[in-house]
Amino acid sequence: MPMLRKAPALHRAVIHLNDAAPEKIQTALQNTANLLAALGPETQVELVAHGPGIAVATDPATEEFTAQLTGLLAAGVALCVCQNTMTARRLTPTDIHPQAVVVASGVAHLVTRQTEGWSYLHP
Amino acid sequence: MPMLRKAPALHRAVIHLNDAAPEKIQTALQNTANLLAALGPETQVELVAHGPGIAVATDPATEEFTAQLTGLLAAGVALCVCQNTMTARRLTPTDIHPQAVVVASGVAHLVTRQTEGWSYLHP
Amino acid sequence: MPMLRKAPALHRAVIHLNDAAPEKIQTALQNTANLLAALGPETQVELVAHGPGIAVATDPATEEFTAQLTGLLAAGVALCVCQNTMTARRLTPTDIHPQAVVVASGVAHLVTRQTEGWSYLHP
Repeated sequence: MPMLRKAPALHRAVIHLNDAAPEKIQTALQNTANLLAALGPETQVELVAHGPGIAVATDPATEEFTAQLTGLLAAGVALCVCQNTMTARRLTPTDIHPQAVVVASGVAHLVTRQTEGWSYLHP
Repeated sequence: MPMLRKAPALHRAVIHLNDAAPEKIQTALQNTANLLAALGPETQVELVAHGPGIAVATDPATEEFTAQLTGLLAAGVALCVCQNTMTARRLTPTDIHPQAVVVASGVAHLVTRQTEGWSYLHP
Repeated sequence: MPMLRKAPALHRAVIHLNDAAPEKIQTALQNTANLLAALGPETQVELVAHGPGIAVATDPATEEFTAQLTGLLAAGVALCVCQNTMTARRLTPTDIHPQAVVVASGVAHLVTRQTEGWSYLHP
């Protein structure tokens, strides 16, 4: 007879990135990697970048952090970027990481996800 | 026969402002405006200012940001300021924005609202 | 006949500390004290330190902030420190505050607690 196991809680988290400083971006990426490692691969994580934080998804940043970001995307993390920010900075989809998902508003997405039960982290 | 529509989720969010830097205050006000624009006018938003963040509600700040803050208040956003901070800084109600709502403790208000189901943002 | 009273909500909050700057640590400790004072002694508060924020639990920091930290611990606040951070910085349990509780991952603990209904604060 198999042992009964309690199903693990499904964890879902949005990570708020609104800073362009390389050390802040690095911290957000590292926190995301640690989160997945600790809670398991089924954990759903969205890195939500808006305002200056969109740097994580634009060319220079993606070059600098390519390896880590690529690994996170391959592990199922979603990189969500803010259309409002793109519009304000005259960025088009060709300017941002090809795997990024565009959301209408970064802050609205962070609020909506919490309404749906997701946890929130501001690294 | 009218189309059935799913009722939209009611979004409620507290925005944490604990910084006096003008660019941080500006960001918090802009994030609040973007949130309302994206989620609709029924969205309930409280901007909770405490510690150095109370600058948003004191005279120089309200002069600097008057137009944007006035617009947000007219749109139904609540500006909540912390009584603990007012006491520590010897501020009286005449020192703060006339439409501000005084809460006993800014951090306690942020926690209480989340207990009630509100989302949290730290710009 | 006794008056009926509505049971007060139980408040539970995690406070995110990922900064070593003394003023940031001081703010986190003060916010924690204000939270307990406002919401009552049954309130459950965990101060979750990781990354540079682990400074709150290492010797120099605990000397600097001893009085306030000791008071908070005596009041039932838990000081949770991140094993990942300890490993990365080659810290052993003897290097950190004797009353600290070690959690496998600071960010995972912050997410797990929110999944369980706790509120989140980033001072």
